[in-house]
Amino acid sequence: MIGELPGIAVGQAFPNRRALHDAGVHRPLQAGICGTRQTGAESIVVSGGYADDEDYGVVIIYTGHGGRDPETQKQVAEQSLTDSGNAALVTSYLEGFPVRVVRGAQARSPHAPAEGYRYDGLFGIASFGSKMGVDGFRVWQFRLEAMSQPEKLSELDSQGDSPVAMEGASPRKFVATQRIVRNTGVARQVKAWHVDHCQVCGTRLVVPGGTYSEAAHIQALGAPHNGPDVVGNVLCLCPNCHVLFDAGALYLRDDLVVMAGESEVGPLRLDSRHQIRLEFVRSHRSRWRQ
Amino acid sequence: MIGELPGIAVGQAFPNRRALHDAGVHRPLQAGICGTRQTGAESIVVSGGYADDEDYGVVIIYTGHGGRDPETQKQVAEQSLTDSGNAALVTSYLEGFPVRVVRGAQARSPHAPAEGYRYDGLFGIASFGSKMGVDGFRVWQFRLEAMSQPEKLSELDSQGDSPVAMEGASPRKFVATQRIVRNTGVARQVKAWHVDHCQVCGTRLVVPGGTYSEAAHIQALGAPHNGPDVVGNVLCLCPNCHVLFDAGALYLRDDLVVMAGESEVGPLRLDSRHQIRLEFVRSHRSRWRQ
Repeated sequence: MIGELPGIAVGQAFPNRRALHDAGVHRPLQAGICGTRQTGAESIVVSGGYADDEDYGVVIIYTGHGGRDPETQKQVAEQSLTDSGNAALVTSYLEGFPVRVVRGAQARSPHAPAEGYRYDGLFGIASFGSKMGVDGFRVWQFRLEAMSQPEKLSELDSQGDSPVAMEGASPRKFVATQRIVRNTGVARQVKAWHVDHCQVCGTRLVVPGGTYSEAAHIQALGAPHNGPDVVGNVLCLCPNCHVLFDAGALYLRDDLVVMAGESEVGPLRLDSRHQIRLEFVRSHRSRWRQ
Repeated sequence: MIGELPGIAVGQAFPNRRALHDAGVHRPLQAGICGTRQTGAESIVVSGGYADDEDYGVVIIYTGHGGRDPETQKQVAEQSLTDSGNAALVTSYLEGFPVRVVRGAQARSPHAPAEGYRYDGLFGIASFGSKMGVDGFRVWQFRLEAMSQPEKLSELDSQGDSPVAMEGASPRKFVATQRIVRNTGVARQVKAWHVDHCQVCGTRLVVPGGTYSEAAHIQALGAPHNGPDVVGNVLCLCPNCHVLFDAGALYLRDDLVVMAGESEVGPLRLDSRHQIRLEFVRSHRSRWRQ
């Protein structure tokens, strides 16, 4: 399960990996990453196993899985994005999924608990990439940002880290945010049906470790439009067509032909499992057309 | 000036429009929107002049400017996005700029001050569109969300409004966020030089009221990459190429040819005012290539 777990509090202590497993906080007994490329990463354990990890509290530079000698704990081979755990983190990055973070006492950082393990809340993956690790082999690293403490991210920023101010914080410098794409379970379903192909232009963005698309609500969420979060109200679009659709540069006719102003762009790409409801199409169109 | 003003507190009271003007909080003495299509909207005053306004506290449905009879205050004509104030709000939507919100006592809402005017902080524009107004003419409306009170947006959500949970809140349902595009002054400069044309593919997204592009930091901001927010470290990209670049599906050679894996995509589109620094190009490339 992705996200917060009912009955589990941020800061809650667990004596060992078995207790984390039993509570469902982090299910594998040994692996540091729980998840697959298909599902994304549920949870990770930060426990000092990788020399390249860095822990700033609200920001963690987390080293991916693989390439370590089980005896010496040193890197003896390159890490790969085809590793299931690493691919899970890429999916979480692409989808914007939150990841449960558990810190273990073995981690060499002031943010580690004194003993056992501690659940430290949800983090988002802000970026990733590879680098030559301290042991001389390429490792993949993921920048995790705490989702529940944006004000502390802002403090970290003002302490000399680069701009990480997030919405909800009071940034010292002007850093605006834009294009927050909401990704619900419904959205995920629609994107899976279309295998990340844009329903307008057919584009599918392929990146190392995954593919990317966005879910666009046809009748917008929230007042004054109050569209619902149901599959009949969601399109799978590439980011470009999403911008155009949300700002009215693209709209749909009742026959599901995509229109730009008075011009026909072409038929919407359909999937028989994905029934689009005309009431939402009409609501969206009414925002832009008389 | 966009954003918070030094020395002005959220909740601060002002006796009249002249006092708002003198403090720089809202500069026009009569107009409800301060800004232009080019600059975006600095500030708005919510003062009950438009019958279609709705005020939920942390969410405001704000009616654009124009078409009112100055005597009766009723709509007597359609509103237009070519109106300078309305176009300013579209720019703020596209750029993700925060807008200062001032409420006046004349507004018929429980969120209005008892007398005079009150500065109520920064709001972001989540969506916009037009509808037939209560007076029988088309009006443009903008959904404003309070940026400083995400937890209250979440409460509003759970009270039956549609999902508006924002990053930093603890949403009751699982609503992940993704692709938060940061838009700094530096980013704005680079996008202006390229007039919103993508430096990789040339795409320029044209929407009613404006054009859209994104600023991509070449060497990523924040640890572990720690790229700076300077023009030599920023590209103007369409959202699709931005996703590809951030995830390593696109990278640059030292001769500024865009590469996808081992294939040449083509030369980066350049502007003589925009000097890209190779140290950042190399840093980005090193994340994806040995």
